[in-house]
Amino acid sequence: MSMKQTRVTIFGLGPMGQAIAGVLLDAGHDVTVWNRTPAKADPLVARGARRASDPSDAVAGSTLVLVSLMDYDAVRDVLLPVGGALRGKALVNLTAGTPQGAREMAAWAGAHGIDYLEGAILSPADFMGGEQAHILYSGPEDVYHAHEPILKTLATAQYLGAEPGHAAAHEVALLDMFWSSVAGIVHAFALARTEHVTGRALAPHLKVIAELLPAIVDEFAWRVDDDKYEGDVSNIRSTHAALTHIIAAAQAHGIDTGVLAATKALAAKAIEAGHGDDGFARITDTLTPARV
Amino acid sequence: MSMKQTRVTIFGLGPMGQAIAGVLLDAGHDVTVWNRTPAKADPLVARGARRASDPSDAVAGSTLVLVSLMDYDAVRDVLLPVGGALRGKALVNLTAGTPQGAREMAAWAGAHGIDYLEGAILSPADFMGGEQAHILYSGPEDVYHAHEPILKTLATAQYLGAEPGHAAAHEVALLDMFWSSVAGIVHAFALARTEHVTGRALAPHLKVIAELLPAIVDEFAWRVDDDKYEGDVSNIRSTHAALTHIIAAAQAHGIDTGVLAATKALAAKAIEAGHGDDGFARITDTLTPARV
Repeated sequence: MSMKQTRVTIFGLGPMGQAIAGVLLDAGHDVTVWNRTPAKADPLVARGARRASDPSDAVAGSTLVLVSLMDYDAVRDVLLPVGGALRGKALVNLTAGTPQGAREMAAWAGAHGIDYLEGAILSPADFMGGEQAHILYSGPEDVYHAHEPILKTLATAQYLGAEPGHAAAHEVALLDMFWSSVAGIVHAFALARTEHVTGRALAPHLKVIAELLPAIVDEFAWRVDDDKYEGDVSNIRSTHAALTHIIAAAQAHGIDTGVLAATKALAAKAIEAGHGDDGFARITDTLTPARV
Repeated sequence: MSMKQTRVTIFGLGPMGQAIAGVLLDAGHDVTVWNRTPAKADPLVARGARRASDPSDAVAGSTLVLVSLMDYDAVRDVLLPVGGALRGKALVNLTAGTPQGAREMAAWAGAHGIDYLEGAILSPADFMGGEQAHILYSGPEDVYHAHEPILKTLATAQYLGAEPGHAAAHEVALLDMFWSSVAGIVHAFALARTEHVTGRALAPHLKVIAELLPAIVDEFAWRVDDDKYEGDVSNIRSTHAALTHIIAAAQAHGIDTGVLAATKALAAKAIEAGHGDDGFARITDTLTPARV
């Protein structure tokens, strides 16, 4: 292996932190781990990781610190007390959070002389270490390039620029789409179940639908950028009609219709504003009437 | 061409009805069309279709009648007055609606001696006539098989069984997942826009996320069928945390958070019930507490 061994610390051993630590151990790095519940480190210690006794001990010997915690509150709880010990080290925060939260962390890191990158993980934990895994980074370009080789062992890495909130800006949008879709999947299984359609019977057809989405993403991208909403193959009025009967089918079985009702309300608002003949991409403008 | 020419009527010339009529004209069939706004028929008449003067005239000479209207209210408005004229003919309702609505239409058709099939279209209008287009059918097996060759010119056809609501049961579930996902796409573009990320910049990453969904569909299918919700790579508590910060990012820019808030409420309900460590597939049970 041509890459030199790096002393790396990982804070947080949920499924993602465990996966990252495992990839780095496999690549031959000197890995220190810390988790609030120490037992989570057991399988990694068995593979050669060092278990730190506390956050201060965790960062002591490392040049690179990776953070994968539940949220930014947890990040602040763990890191703020060890700001002095992190001076001169690289800190890569892989915890999901808001762009504003990332900017605040970057400002704190800057004030403590810490080289700070924000990373947005686009892939599930079990993809880590493979080409299918993707992570986006933002922060100082020299810091990114200094650590690019080791970051590329984790996932396909893409650098988005210096603005510290930019990776999180992508991440919140991507998670937004992801969880709305997954909410649709579980709701679809629930609705099908009320009509005696099993998950396994519905799944092949649901996959036909899921496979339509990448092309819709590409089409909506130019429509929202160029404000071109006419000429779509379906329009907001027909979507409103579809949502009306999906909601009726769910209500007939007492199933919560919150997600569908919220989507229908957006369609109704667009129709009231005179956009019923436009494609659904127009809803992006309904959501953000003032361009920024 | 080996298939014999059929006299087919199409009610409804929205994008889907137009696409279907076009495929049938291209296949050499004798096509009659009717639409409430007659001018919608002009391009099809130019290609050889006959324009009917009213619904009764539309069905007069045909053996097969296809219906693609906005909703079941429109279907009843158009078809109920011509029930007698439809006796002995095959009626294939491709209009999206509820399982209950399909069962009511099938009962009405049965009482009038009409051979009734319900069709659920899974693909956009511009796919029609190609292998990528998919339509599911339910209704009497002999009626399906009698018309299967011509139905297969429209799309890959799958017969689901005799229960008349079964195609619509699949359709509402599939449209549920589709529109929840598309709502997530437009919301993602809106949220990205507030942080100066264009549609075209976000799209490649959104497609990485969209491409994760088919595998999630397969995994959730066996989980919901077998009631196995432990051991997923992520859990409901982490989803709840993610939704909390996505909502915070949207609220910081005054973007409607209805879809996300409804999803978060489902996650909160599952956590309160003690399922926070389970995978998100468990939400299917939160939605349908009583198995049917």
